[in-house]
Amino acid sequence: MNRDIKNIVSQMTLEEKAGMCSGLDVWHLKGVERLGIPSIMVANGSNGLHKQTASSESANMNSGIPSTCFPTAAGLASTWNRELIREVGTALGEVCQAENIAVLLGPGANIKRSPLGGRNFEYFSEDPYLSSEIAASHIQGVQSQGVGTSLKHFAVNNQEYHRMTYDAVIDERTLREIYLASFEGAVKKGQPWTLMTAYNKINGSYASQNDHLLGDVLRNEWGYEGLVVSDWGAVDQIVDSLAGGLELEMPGNGDISEKKIIHAVKNQKLSVEVLDIAVERMLQRVFMHLDNKKENATFDQDEHHQLARKVASESIVLLKNTDNVLPLEKSSKVAIIGALAQKPKFQGGGSAFVVPTRVDIPLDEINQLATSEDLITYAPGYTLDSEDVDNSLMEEAILAAQVADVTVIFAGLPDGFETELADRAHLLLPYNQQQLIEAIAAVQSKVVVVLMNGAALEMPWATSVSSIVEAYLGGQAVGGAIADVLFGEVNPSGKLAETFPMKLAHNPSFLNFPGEGNRVEYKEGIFVGYRYYDTKKIEPLFPFGHGLSYTTFEYSNLTMSRTELSDTDTVDVQVTISNTGSRAGKETVQLYVKDIESSVVRPDKELKDFAKVELKPGEHTTISFTLHKRAFAYYNVALKDWHVESGSFEIMIGGSSSTIALGATILVNSTVSLRQTYDRNSLLGELMTNPVAAPILQALTQNFQASMGIAEGDEKTAKMMQAALTGMPLRNLVTFSQGGFTDGMVEQLLIQLNEQN
Amino acid sequence: MNRDIKNIVSQMTLEEKAGMCSGLDVWHLKGVERLGIPSIMVANGSNGLHKQTASSESANMNSGIPSTCFPTAAGLASTWNRELIREVGTALGEVCQAENIAVLLGPGANIKRSPLGGRNFEYFSEDPYLSSEIAASHIQGVQSQGVGTSLKHFAVNNQEYHRMTYDAVIDERTLREIYLASFEGAVKKGQPWTLMTAYNKINGSYASQNDHLLGDVLRNEWGYEGLVVSDWGAVDQIVDSLAGGLELEMPGNGDISEKKIIHAVKNQKLSVEVLDIAVERMLQRVFMHLDNKKENATFDQDEHHQLARKVASESIVLLKNTDNVLPLEKSSKVAIIGALAQKPKFQGGGSAFVVPTRVDIPLDEINQLATSEDLITYAPGYTLDSEDVDNSLMEEAILAAQVADVTVIFAGLPDGFETELADRAHLLLPYNQQQLIEAIAAVQSKVVVVLMNGAALEMPWATSVSSIVEAYLGGQAVGGAIADVLFGEVNPSGKLAETFPMKLAHNPSFLNFPGEGNRVEYKEGIFVGYRYYDTKKIEPLFPFGHGLSYTTFEYSNLTMSRTELSDTDTVDVQVTISNTGSRAGKETVQLYVKDIESSVVRPDKELKDFAKVELKPGEHTTISFTLHKRAFAYYNVALKDWHVESGSFEIMIGGSSSTIALGATILVNSTVSLRQTYDRNSLLGELMTNPVAAPILQALTQNFQASMGIAEGDEKTAKMMQAALTGMPLRNLVTFSQGGFTDGMVEQLLIQLNEQN
Repeated sequence: MNRDIKNIVSQMTLEEKAGMCSGLDVWHLKGVERLGIPSIMVANGSNGLHKQTASSESANMNSGIPSTCFPTAAGLASTWNRELIREVGTALGEVCQAENIAVLLGPGANIKRSPLGGRNFEYFSEDPYLSSEIAASHIQGVQSQGVGTSLKHFAVNNQEYHRMTYDAVIDERTLREIYLASFEGAVKKGQPWTLMTAYNKINGSYASQNDHLLGDVLRNEWGYEGLVVSDWGAVDQIVDSLAGGLELEMPGNGDISEKKIIHAVKNQKLSVEVLDIAVERMLQRVFMHLDNKKENATFDQDEHHQLARKVASESIVLLKNTDNVLPLEKSSKVAIIGALAQKPKFQGGGSAFVVPTRVDIPLDEINQLATSEDLITYAPGYTLDSEDVDNSLMEEAILAAQVADVTVIFAGLPDGFETELADRAHLLLPYNQQQLIEAIAAVQSKVVVVLMNGAALEMPWATSVSSIVEAYLGGQAVGGAIADVLFGEVNPSGKLAETFPMKLAHNPSFLNFPGEGNRVEYKEGIFVGYRYYDTKKIEPLFPFGHGLSYTTFEYSNLTMSRTELSDTDTVDVQVTISNTGSRAGKETVQLYVKDIESSVVRPDKELKDFAKVELKPGEHTTISFTLHKRAFAYYNVALKDWHVESGSFEIMIGGSSSTIALGATILVNSTVSLRQTYDRNSLLGELMTNPVAAPILQALTQNFQASMGIAEGDEKTAKMMQAALTGMPLRNLVTFSQGGFTDGMVEQLLIQLNEQN
Repeated sequence: MNRDIKNIVSQMTLEEKAGMCSGLDVWHLKGVERLGIPSIMVANGSNGLHKQTASSESANMNSGIPSTCFPTAAGLASTWNRELIREVGTALGEVCQAENIAVLLGPGANIKRSPLGGRNFEYFSEDPYLSSEIAASHIQGVQSQGVGTSLKHFAVNNQEYHRMTYDAVIDERTLREIYLASFEGAVKKGQPWTLMTAYNKINGSYASQNDHLLGDVLRNEWGYEGLVVSDWGAVDQIVDSLAGGLELEMPGNGDISEKKIIHAVKNQKLSVEVLDIAVERMLQRVFMHLDNKKENATFDQDEHHQLARKVASESIVLLKNTDNVLPLEKSSKVAIIGALAQKPKFQGGGSAFVVPTRVDIPLDEINQLATSEDLITYAPGYTLDSEDVDNSLMEEAILAAQVADVTVIFAGLPDGFETELADRAHLLLPYNQQQLIEAIAAVQSKVVVVLMNGAALEMPWATSVSSIVEAYLGGQAVGGAIADVLFGEVNPSGKLAETFPMKLAHNPSFLNFPGEGNRVEYKEGIFVGYRYYDTKKIEPLFPFGHGLSYTTFEYSNLTMSRTELSDTDTVDVQVTISNTGSRAGKETVQLYVKDIESSVVRPDKELKDFAKVELKPGEHTTISFTLHKRAFAYYNVALKDWHVESGSFEIMIGGSSSTIALGATILVNSTVSLRQTYDRNSLLGELMTNPVAAPILQALTQNFQASMGIAEGDEKTAKMMQAALTGMPLRNLVTFSQGGFTDGMVEQLLIQLNEQN
C-alpha cells in the first residue's frame, strides 16, 4: 500500500516524534494511535523464534512460546548451502507471521575472531565472504515471508568480556576486509529491514553513535535505507546516537530519552530534519509490517521439524574417519556412551534461546535405525552437572565398550559453557568426558566421537579415536540427524566454517583477547582464522573448509575465460567435479585467491566463492564461478577504496582450504594509478625509478661516488655503495656531498617531480 | 686533568660552537686549535677495530689496518659470560689506544626482532636483559682502557629495509620493556662515553631528534650524561636534532649544518643554552680522550688472537648431539666436507667489517689436533660463489663420507647473506649446502654439521644428522675454536641468545616485517623471541638459552630468603648446581620469572638473571641471585613507571628457557596503589567491589531485578541476570529502570565515588 509517510510525519508533534525514537517496552515499538501508527513487536531468534509469554516487560530469557529450533548459526554455516539456509529463513518467517512478529532480531554476522567468544555459536564464520553469503540467504528467506530481520551486531562485536564498554582498536583495512565485509554482502544482497548496532565501541566511538560505521560506510557507501536499531541497552547518549546515524533505541526507558531528544531539538543540538528522517525510516518499517501481515497465518510444525532434521544432517561435519569406521552397519553391536545421547545439547544460552516444539533423542533415533534395539547398549559414562569423573559410570561405560563392535561416544559442552554474557575459559571438553574418551579408546579400537558444541574445540584425544563427527548445536532434530549420518542414511557434507586449532594459544587473537580493561587491540589485523594459520604455517587440528564424505570427489579441468584482465573486467572460472566413490554425496567446491606479490601484506589465500553440488556415484558436473575486481582487491586506506595491485594472482580450487586440487595463474591489470609524491626523505632507489628524476640522480650519484673515493674495480665496495645509495633518502645527497648538492637543489628537484604527477 | 669546560665554551664564537656540532669529515670531529681543542678520531668496530687506511674522506669499508677480529656480537652473547666479554672489551680498548682512536663505535644493543634483520650478527640477543648485560660488560671493558664506546643504534633499529626512513610504530609498554630495556642496563651499568642514535623514526619522529627517547627517557629518567651522536647520515634537520637532544651530527658536511645552526640561534629558533650544553658535552669527551691517552701504547697480537680463540670456543653452541657422536676421537677417520672448512666465514659485512691480523683455517686446526693427518680427508662439496649443486664436488664428498668413521660438514652463509644494508630473504642455507647435507646423511650415520652464520637458521635437515655445532661468525680464531670443540679440547658451553624457529613464518614479527613502505608496526608487542614461542605454544627448532655440553649438570636445593616481599624489598634466590658427568664443563644457570595472574598480558616467562659457572666432574657450587622490583614489574603506561601487580610469581631456574629444572612461588605485594576513577560507563561488577558503591548498588539492583520480573526460584534466569548485571555499565540502570534511576542520580553517585579516592 502506498502511503505518504512524509505527510504522516508532518502531522506528528515533536513529542510524538521524539517518543518514537525509543521503544515502548522491552519488545514493542511505540505507536501513535491518532495517526494509525500501530505498536509493532519484535522478538529474538536466528534459528527459531523466541517470543516471550510472560509480561513483555520481563527479560526472562528462558520462557516463551514453542518454536522449531533449527541448528544454531555455527551449524547453518557448516552446510555451505545458500538455498537450504533460505528455506530455514522462510520457515522462520512463517512462524513470525503466525505470531505477529514484525521483525526477527537476527541473523548475526560477526566474525569468529577467537574461538573463546561466548556467542560464536550464534555467528556463522571466521571468513567474511562465507558469513555474509549465509547471512544474506537467511535474510532473504525470512523477508520472503513479509517479515523483517535485524542484521546484528554492527560491528566488531567479538567477545562477551566487557562487551558493553570495550573499545575495539582496529585499523581501517582490517575493519573493511574482515569485520565490515562480513556485513557488507549481507546488507547489499539481503537488504535487511533493520540493522542492529553492537554494544561496544569501535576506535573510541560507541557502535550506536559511530558515524564512520553508520554514516560513511553503511548509508553513504553501501546505500542502506533500512532502520538502524540499538542492541538492548547499547545507547550511551541518545542525542549523539541520533546524530550519529541511529534511529531507534531499545528497549524503552519511559520518557527519559524522549525528553532528552526534545530538549536537544529545542536547543538546536539536534536538527529536526535528522529526527524526521529517523521517524520516516521507522514508519516505513512499521507499514511494511502492516502491509505484509498475513491474517490467521499458521505453519506446519511437523514440516518444520523435518526441515530442521534435514538441515542438521547437512550441517554435520565428518572431521575424521579412519578406516571408514563410519557409516556403521545397522547390524553391528554398537555401544552408545555419554549422557548427551539421552539429553542432547542442541542450542546455546542467552537471547538466542528457543523453546523447542519437540526434541529428538539421539539414542532413540539410533535404536530406530538399527536392525534391532538389542544390538544397541547404552551407558551414560559421565554426568552433565559436574566435571568430576564418576568411577561407577566410567566402569559401566568401559564394560559396554569392550563387548561392542564399535563404540559411539557422545561428548560436548554442557549448559553454561557456551552462552551470551560469558566467553569460554578454554577449548577443552569437560574433564570427565576427556577421561572417558581416553579410557574407552584404550579398550576399543573402533571409537566414534560425536560432538555437540557451538565452536572450535581442542582435542588432545583426537589421535586416539577412529572417527569424529561434529554435530555442532544442531537444533531440536539433531538426534535424528546424527543417527542418519552414523548409519549412512545421510552422507555427511558439512564443512567447517571455522578453523579448529591444535591449541588455543595458536589462535591469532590469543595475545590480545579479551584485551585489557576496556581496550581490545585487534593486532592480528586481517589475519583472522585460516588467513593466519595458512600464512603463519601453523598446522591446525582441522582446517577451515574441511569436512569428509562417505564418497570421494575428483576435481578436473580447471578453465578460465581469460588469463589476463583489467580490474573492471570479470573472469569465469570453470571446474569439473566428479563423484568417484560408491555413494551419492554432496561436495562444497571452494575457490580461493592469492595475490602472488604485493606491496601490502596479504594472506596466503582468501575464499572468494563456493558452490555446493550433489552427485550420484560416477556422475560429474561443471561448476562456473564469476570473479570480479573484489576477488583480487585489498582495501587501500589511502585511496579509501578497494584496489587491485597489477600482477599475477593464483586461483585455487579444492574441497577445503588445505586440500587445493587445482590451481591456475591469472594476470590482473589495475586501471587505477596511485599518486606518488616525493619529499626530502624519499629514497634514492625509489626516485631512480622515476623517469624525470633518474637521469638527474644518476649524474649526481656518480660524482658522489667519485668524491667518496670509491676505486674503480673495487667490485665488493662498489656493490655495497650501490646498496647504500639506493637505500638513502634524497636529503643524504646534501649530507654526503660536502657542499656539492644543496638543500635548495633538493627543493627544486622535488617541485619538478611532484608537478609532473 | 681538571678543566673548566664552561670557561672554554664561553671563549668560543658562535661559529666555532655551531661548527663543533657536526663532524670534520667521515671519522673526525672538529677541533679548535686556538683553544687547545684537538680533532679526535672515532672508528667502527664492536668485535675488532676498523680504522681505515685510505683518506679519511673515503667510506670504503673493506680496507683498513689489521686488528684482531673477535667473534661478532651474536657469538659474544652466546658465551653468557660477562667477565669474558669484559676481557674482549679490554683488548679492543688496547687496540684503540695503540691506534689513537678516541671512541669505538659500538657495541650495538638492538633487539633481534626478526631473524631476517641484516645486522643481527652485530647485535646480542632477542632478550633485553641478556643484551644489556653483555653490552654493559663490553662497554666496561673498552672504557677500562680510557677509550670511549658508542652504544648504538638508539633505538628500535631492527631492519635494513628502508632503514633510513622507516617509522617504527610501537606502543610505549613494548618500547620500555623490550627495545629500550636492552639499552637501559647498558647505559646505567656501562656509562658509555657516547650513544649513537638510529636512522629510523620512532612513532613519527626520527631517532636523531626524538625528544621522548633522548629527553624524557635517556636524560631525565636514566640520567645519562654522555654525548649523543647521530648514526652516519641519520640527521634530517640538524636544528630539530639539537633541540631534540642530539649533540653531534656525523659525518661532516662542510659548513651546511653550521650555517643552519647559526641561523637558528640568530633567529631565536634554537637557544644558545642548548648549543652550549651540546658543546660542553662534546668537550668533556674530547678531554676525557686527551686525559686518558696512553702514548706509544701497543698490544700483543698473539695474546689477542689466543683470547679470540678462547672466546670463540666459549661462544660455540652445541645444538644437537645424538648418541654423543661428539667429541670426536682423535684417532677416528674423519671426513671434513665443505669449502668453509678451508675458507671460513667468520664475520659479516658492512661497517662491522674488520681486517683480521690472521685467520685460523678449520681444516688445518683439525689436522693439528688429530692423531695423524692421514686420518683426515677433505672434500669441498660445494662452491661458495654459487648455490647450484656441483655434481662432481658432491660425488667426491659422498665418497669421502662413505669411508670415514664420522663426517663433519662445514656449512654456513657465504658473503653477502648477512650484511649491513640488506635483510636476509629467508633462513635457509644455500641450496647446494642443503642438498649436500641430505646426500651425506644418506650414506653416513654419524654426521656432524658445523655452522658458520650470524643468526638463526631453518634446518629442514636437522633430523637427518647426529650433531649440530653452531659456531656463529666466530672471528679470526674460529677455526681453532671449532677444532677444540670437535675433539673435546674445550667442552662447549655456549647457549643460544636467540630462538631458532622451525619456520620463519613462526617468528612473531613475520606478518609485520619489514612493514609497508616506510611504516613498520610492532604489532607483536612485547612478545619478541621466546616470550612469543613460549606463550603461543609454538615449538621452536632450538629454544632460547639452549646449548648442550659434553658433561651433565644437575640442579637442586632452590631456596629463597623469603617467600613474601613488598616491591621495595629484594629477595635472594639460591640454587645448587652439580657437574654429574665425567668432564669439566661450564653451565649457564638461567633465572626466569612469571607473573601467575595479571590484569595485563604478560609472557610465560622472562629472563631476569643468569650466572655462568665452571665445575669439575663431581663438583658442585651454590649460586645466589638477588631479585629487585624490576624482576617482577611490567611497564605501566598510565603510571609512566614500572609496576608490580600484587600476587604470586613463579621463579624458574634451569639450563635453558625450555628446560626448567626447579621452580618456586613467591608472593609480591605492591606498595603503589593505582587510582581508580569511575564514570557512567563503569561496569556494575567493578563498582560492586567498591565499598561505598556496593551497598547503594545492591539495593538498586534488587529493585531492578524485581522490576524485570525475575521470578524467585528461577535459578537459571537469576544466574544469567546476575551475569548481565555485573557486565552492565552504570548508565544502564537508567536505561532499564523505566524512570526509577535517573541520570542525575548517576552523576551524584559518581561524584561521591570519585571524591573518596
